[in-house]
Amino acid sequence: MRIHRLAFAVVALFCTLAAHAQTDPLPSWNAGPHKQAIVAFVRSVTLKSSPKFVPPEERIATFDNDGTLWGEQPIYVQLAFALDRVKALTPQHPEWKTQEPFASLQKGDLKSALAGGERALLEIVMATHAGMTTEAFDKSVKDWIATTRHPKTGRLYTEMVYQPMLELLAYLRANGFKTFIVSGGGIEFMRPWAERVYGVPPEQVVGSSIKTKFVMQDGKPVLLRLPELNFIDDGDGKPVGIQQHIGRRPIAAFGNSDGDLQMLQWTAAGSGATLCLFVHHTDAEREYAYDRTSSIGKLDLGLDEAAKRGWTVVDMKNDWKVIYPPKHGGH
Amino acid sequence: MRIHRLAFAVVALFCTLAAHAQTDPLPSWNAGPHKQAIVAFVRSVTLKSSPKFVPPEERIATFDNDGTLWGEQPIYVQLAFALDRVKALTPQHPEWKTQEPFASLQKGDLKSALAGGERALLEIVMATHAGMTTEAFDKSVKDWIATTRHPKTGRLYTEMVYQPMLELLAYLRANGFKTFIVSGGGIEFMRPWAERVYGVPPEQVVGSSIKTKFVMQDGKPVLLRLPELNFIDDGDGKPVGIQQHIGRRPIAAFGNSDGDLQMLQWTAAGSGATLCLFVHHTDAEREYAYDRTSSIGKLDLGLDEAAKRGWTVVDMKNDWKVIYPPKHGGH
Repeated sequence: MRIHRLAFAVVALFCTLAAHAQTDPLPSWNAGPHKQAIVAFVRSVTLKSSPKFVPPEERIATFDNDGTLWGEQPIYVQLAFALDRVKALTPQHPEWKTQEPFASLQKGDLKSALAGGERALLEIVMATHAGMTTEAFDKSVKDWIATTRHPKTGRLYTEMVYQPMLELLAYLRANGFKTFIVSGGGIEFMRPWAERVYGVPPEQVVGSSIKTKFVMQDGKPVLLRLPELNFIDDGDGKPVGIQQHIGRRPIAAFGNSDGDLQMLQWTAAGSGATLCLFVHHTDAEREYAYDRTSSIGKLDLGLDEAAKRGWTVVDMKNDWKVIYPPKHGGH
Repeated sequence: MRIHRLAFAVVALFCTLAAHAQTDPLPSWNAGPHKQAIVAFVRSVTLKSSPKFVPPEERIATFDNDGTLWGEQPIYVQLAFALDRVKALTPQHPEWKTQEPFASLQKGDLKSALAGGERALLEIVMATHAGMTTEAFDKSVKDWIATTRHPKTGRLYTEMVYQPMLELLAYLRANGFKTFIVSGGGIEFMRPWAERVYGVPPEQVVGSSIKTKFVMQDGKPVLLRLPELNFIDDGDGKPVGIQQHIGRRPIAAFGNSDGDLQMLQWTAAGSGATLCLFVHHTDAEREYAYDRTSSIGKLDLGLDEAAKRGWTVVDMKNDWKVIYPPKHGGH
């Protein structure tokens, strides 16, 4: 019996060693200090013998979405969705012919439409995201995302997620992390596809939202989406959204813009080992190159603070072997 | 090799059968139609061969807290906490000597203090729940809940959870369910102990909240709790809170009062098999007996709708062998 147990232990040990020696969990990342920083952090919090060991239930990792998990150029995907919805709804809104920002949108003049700033953007969002049930909105997102392609690459938007970040999500989960999205984008715009594309279930998506109201429609309970802001999950709002939805401080946070800075600060202020990482868009050829002066995904204060504090700044051009996953189905 | 595989399959089958034949997962529940309804529902959604099979990621179960998972009489536990905080804070607030509702509280006159209705209650909550960091509030809850005992039973409040409901939580989780708390109580009042007591982690607690704000204090980022309501997770608010935090409709919902009715309606309107259950407080001897006319945990419309729709109404007196778990440590 003793020998039997010993044999079993030896086999188990070999299995463990084999598992450790298995293929690189981050194959799309070039070797170098940034990949090394990620792997070293994960080892330090998961090895039982490590002084920085963190129990699995506290292994919370938060990911920004636009520009961190998928592309955000030349315009946010959700804005492309809203503009398509405006087109679809225009026949029902004759008053939009003269009413801004819709009048400019009908002329195809996005720049004039958005000249009204935040207020114009809010009008577009409310006209396209409110006034229906949560189920109807969910369906409109699913239908759109299943068919709409990026103007430059011709890929479906869900094929414009970053392959190295998909590997990072999977690597963290394989090491007992719970992965959350914490995005300035709409929570209900991401949930319909985030589980399929990122492996992140709806209950682990945090985002901006409008208010909803519970009402009975023909004896059936529905949630109506109201044209009223509920929460902006950006900048200062990200730690607030994290506390509201997760109730624990992340030990790892991933972003790409100054809108993620407070999330990284909040994470870095934790008591144990932490990993704070910015994705820096440096690849004009394979993707886009932008940072300190960009109107979308501006990364300025974040770069300074990352340098000062030794956070990891991923150089897309040099750190990533590929940007996007292999295409499924051709066109 | 073929035979080896067959032998393995036979062993696996026996292990499965043995697991199924194992001890009753709900030992504190008396046999009868209510226990049977729970077990039948769980089997119907978990057996792969069942026409009502639900994949694990969609097995969402939501539990009210006060009166469903733990006691709520003679006053809500969170109100007892607030009153103790008022006492602790009184030396710093000389103005409370003449200011209601605090003046009455100082005289020990709870009835007069609460005569101001919702407004008075709100003043008590804001005076005791706001004006500190989330970390400081978390600590004050942990300190209080670790030591304070119920006036009637002398038990710690965390020992006044319902043993049959603890078994139900564990039974559902063992069957692949994700269990959430969806309570009218404060989300940050429950999180500090819900994981230890119920096995429900902070990110699966939904509740009422006040607003918080991200600020730098001496170069350290903190979340300040503001004296401003953010969300009331009760009645109509429960389906709203469920959508906001979970983003999926539950397939099982558990409550004890009319404040849970909309959560059960929202659950019952799902497309597959659902379980809607009210805990009916019928045991004046071992706990409390109250329903249609109670000022706390009123269950009136809910009883009517449950009867009409065939929802499960647990009769605490007859369905539960015990109310509370065995005591740990004496006093």
